[in-house]
Amino acid sequence: MLGYRNEPVQVEALAPGCLKGTDIALFSAGSGISKQYGPEAVAGGTIVVDNSSAFRGDPACPLVIPEVNPDALPTARPCPPVLVANPNCSTIIMLVALQPLREAFGVERVIVSTYQAASGAGASAMAELENQTRDVLAGRPAEPKIFHEPYAFNLFCHNAAVDVETGLNGEEAKMISETQRIWNDKVVKVTPMCVRVPVLRAHSQSINVTLKRPATEEEVRGALSKAAGVSIVDDRAANRFPTPLKASGGDDVLVGRIRRDPAGPAKGPTTTFDLFIAGDQLRKGAALNAVQIAELLVR
Amino acid sequence: MLGYRNEPVQVEALAPGCLKGTDIALFSAGSGISKQYGPEAVAGGTIVVDNSSAFRGDPACPLVIPEVNPDALPTARPCPPVLVANPNCSTIIMLVALQPLREAFGVERVIVSTYQAASGAGASAMAELENQTRDVLAGRPAEPKIFHEPYAFNLFCHNAAVDVETGLNGEEAKMISETQRIWNDKVVKVTPMCVRVPVLRAHSQSINVTLKRPATEEEVRGALSKAAGVSIVDDRAANRFPTPLKASGGDDVLVGRIRRDPAGPAKGPTTTFDLFIAGDQLRKGAALNAVQIAELLVR
Repeated sequence: MLGYRNEPVQVEALAPGCLKGTDIALFSAGSGISKQYGPEAVAGGTIVVDNSSAFRGDPACPLVIPEVNPDALPTARPCPPVLVANPNCSTIIMLVALQPLREAFGVERVIVSTYQAASGAGASAMAELENQTRDVLAGRPAEPKIFHEPYAFNLFCHNAAVDVETGLNGEEAKMISETQRIWNDKVVKVTPMCVRVPVLRAHSQSINVTLKRPATEEEVRGALSKAAGVSIVDDRAANRFPTPLKASGGDDVLVGRIRRDPAGPAKGPTTTFDLFIAGDQLRKGAALNAVQIAELLVR
Repeated sequence: MLGYRNEPVQVEALAPGCLKGTDIALFSAGSGISKQYGPEAVAGGTIVVDNSSAFRGDPACPLVIPEVNPDALPTARPCPPVLVANPNCSTIIMLVALQPLREAFGVERVIVSTYQAASGAGASAMAELENQTRDVLAGRPAEPKIFHEPYAFNLFCHNAAVDVETGLNGEEAKMISETQRIWNDKVVKVTPMCVRVPVLRAHSQSINVTLKRPATEEEVRGALSKAAGVSIVDDRAANRFPTPLKASGGDDVLVGRIRRDPAGPAKGPTTTFDLFIAGDQLRKGAALNAVQIAELLVR
């Protein structure tokens, strides 16, 4: 039994056949479990929303962010059994912020540097950051266990393995391939640099985006201000912009530092803009997006 | 008296005229003190190397990184009294890494996101990060005093004031104007996003650079490997790249994640590359650069 909103919930061990008769299953136990139980569940009539990366590249499995490409989901009702993949958290957070710009002006190129929290690597990674920081503050050495570098008061390139040919780490490769799939755009240019920072929760991103059609800063701001899932936090006078703490526990992706690229023309419509965004990796980057997909499928 | 390398050093209070007869003075007490005492010292025959931003835009004061533009210094020997400005720490670290690429291939455009340590805002900022982190780990609330946002396990846009017209903060404006001045290049495009991260010491930067002439990745790596002040840390197989901890206490700017922009052509010479760099803000970003300037002036 597990308590949820003051109600006891029955917990059962996963075993072959145990999902029989389940309408919807949300998988969030890693690629191995998803590969083992996902197809079986769909074959047994269950709708599966999978948080792992196991099926994100499978053309038979829609890869969906509800604010971005809900039309990739099956339209028949009741919804037939299907496995829907939940995208990578960095991809979700970036595309929620860029989708209104894509709809209004088109997107040609994105250069993004991430500031990713411990939460993306799970509860044990958050504990490693806390415990190691406690050690360092007490004068004891940092002892990395989960990550390949010391984490206390340090940062390092994302822990996903690096392809020795391309130099891209796994997180960066996902941001490229998933963006192209979700946007159904094989030529959009995406250049990510993924970095793990000593923040417990919520990912931030510094984005330089080149639009297909010129826009003014006001038009860009206007498109963002109307967008679902986006909250603008952009107070230049008070130096108040998105931070991971502000994003933590919230559903929206916070967007700020909205400005013309300072290397572009000083006035008039232009194509290149900067943004700084933050989103809760555990909510919109994972759990919330999965629940939103499930809600769309039973609507 | 202050101990330095086991020798006592006489400390005197700063007062008008007290620098009379001093050959070289290194100023590092903020713009106010530099403005008050710098010109007086030069008039009295002293060579001044100033760490503040007070004279960085003054055409009469060379703005120098020894690895980049040593020829901006006076050439007469003995060197006449002069005030030489030490550039902003983020500018120094970036240009040390980019100078070899500029010399070999030219630089047209730089898009840079920074990951800046507490040290850039002084010892009290480092103490704020440590104390606030201790509070948060003990379950007490974070109490920001120096910075405008909570710092423990958080990050925020650089604390320098933001220009409400352009949206650039002061640190970003410096990176643009100082790069153009040091490179004597009014058209080089520089797009910085400056962010403070919960790291005690050493700044990191994610850089996307567009060269004027196409190069292979091997040529880029070759140019960097021969450069003064640069150490390559770039082991893809082991996921070992520059980190602030590796850069702390060292003189060189660490450069890694050297790769073709994944959005460019997959093979052959190309113009756009990515780098991730880290440099000790207190050493090469400040004290070391000032000492190197002084050494050049008495050589």
